[in-house]
Amino acid sequence: MSKEGPIGVFDSGLGGLTVVKALIRHLPSEDVVYFGDTARVPYGTKSPESIIRFSKENAQVLLKHRVKMIVVACNSSSSYALPLLKKSFDLPILGVIAPGVRKAVATTKNKVVGIIATPATINSRSYHQEIAQQDSSIRIISQACPLFVPLVEEGWFHKPVTLSVAEEYLRVIQKSKADTLILGCTHYPLLKATLQKVMGQGVELIDSAREVALEVKKVLEEYGLARGGSHRAKYKFLISDEPAHFQRLAKRFLGYDIKDVKKVLVK
Amino acid sequence: MSKEGPIGVFDSGLGGLTVVKALIRHLPSEDVVYFGDTARVPYGTKSPESIIRFSKENAQVLLKHRVKMIVVACNSSSSYALPLLKKSFDLPILGVIAPGVRKAVATTKNKVVGIIATPATINSRSYHQEIAQQDSSIRIISQACPLFVPLVEEGWFHKPVTLSVAEEYLRVIQKSKADTLILGCTHYPLLKATLQKVMGQGVELIDSAREVALEVKKVLEEYGLARGGSHRAKYKFLISDEPAHFQRLAKRFLGYDIKDVKKVLVK
Repeated sequence: MSKEGPIGVFDSGLGGLTVVKALIRHLPSEDVVYFGDTARVPYGTKSPESIIRFSKENAQVLLKHRVKMIVVACNSSSSYALPLLKKSFDLPILGVIAPGVRKAVATTKNKVVGIIATPATINSRSYHQEIAQQDSSIRIISQACPLFVPLVEEGWFHKPVTLSVAEEYLRVIQKSKADTLILGCTHYPLLKATLQKVMGQGVELIDSAREVALEVKKVLEEYGLARGGSHRAKYKFLISDEPAHFQRLAKRFLGYDIKDVKKVLVK
Repeated sequence: MSKEGPIGVFDSGLGGLTVVKALIRHLPSEDVVYFGDTARVPYGTKSPESIIRFSKENAQVLLKHRVKMIVVACNSSSSYALPLLKKSFDLPILGVIAPGVRKAVATTKNKVVGIIATPATINSRSYHQEIAQQDSSIRIISQACPLFVPLVEEGWFHKPVTLSVAEEYLRVIQKSKADTLILGCTHYPLLKATLQKVMGQGVELIDSAREVALEVKKVLEEYGLARGGSHRAKYKFLISDEPAHFQRLAKRFLGYDIKDVKKVLVK
């Protein structure tokens, strides 16, 4: 690992681009290599065993690009695969659970926090454990939202049915009077407008992307791996399915067009 | 290949079980090996290249079980991979497109036929071509329904949001005055009640499972591979993700519990 190496980021599909966007903003001189496993998306409705296997294969894709650290920008992977990845690979590896929880704990006033995520993430109870560790007085209400990832991957951000699905899923969170809602999946920030509409303005939606970027900065500094100066950062995008659909939607996540997307097989 | 070998069936996930159910009914003395690629489901939102690669790997899984023929019980795979599979493997291989079209052509009175399927299947234009070949006077209205597979795989057959999603997708078909609607994905028969409600009783919904089973029977007889007599058929279920979720939902498709589901890796 060298200072000059890129930061590696992987996700099951498009969602992790919300983390890349935050990295670009907060660490402007760092190169980034992104890998989205679009051939096998979604992860959150699949088993822990498959999520762990996929995550390991994804990390190996990034290592071939000499990354100096890995950000697991997928909550399902972070929930199940993080300990194994840390044991298997000798570089700093960061998940997205703890940073999001830190922000939620700092935000809530009435100590009632909602979590929405994929079934895999909710079932792992990783958010519950992290919150309990940071503030055991917080009451947690969680809801799995298996259809949100397909809705985002389809680009249906503002359709009426997206609102209907959100209303169905969020009912239990609304009833709980939570004042803070963790978006426990990197895809969900793309539905933020719809989710805010359903929850009302009084509820704070926590998107962990910014917190993750700030944590990455801290980790790189701790390890002496931060790249200073005025390097013009390069961004590389790799996916496991064909690039056309990814390129079309990526703009929504990143705010700009990406032209150079390469397909790599994970095996 | 021997008469005693099983019929092999593959699908991206659970949907192909609707075909297995029809095989059990119409070919009661034939053994069946089913493979559902639940680790990579869905296929219909992925690229032709990935669908072809997955399909070839799935066929290889079935061949290890000495199947005497292969039924591609996935419309996305049938649309893109059938010619290649037929060229690559030396046994009878049957898709699900042509049998469904035959029934639709025989059913429609006003010669307006709707097709709903995954984006991959619709984009392939395989249904359009097959209909044009069988009856060029038929007007076709097609609609991709990317959310139906995740809805079925989640078991949301009768939820209010499923109705909302169906209303959104079917609007264009309703306007067309089609009297016949092809369910161009093996998952969709599970949504039949909801789809019928949206379309009204005057529209005939075409589920190709039965037609496929009858076609399998014909093919086996043609090739001298039909198993006669009173053999007590055995059914084997293989999937690429963990069995728990599959087993829970399989009953909805088959009408009975399956206990013996084995996980196999596709690589």
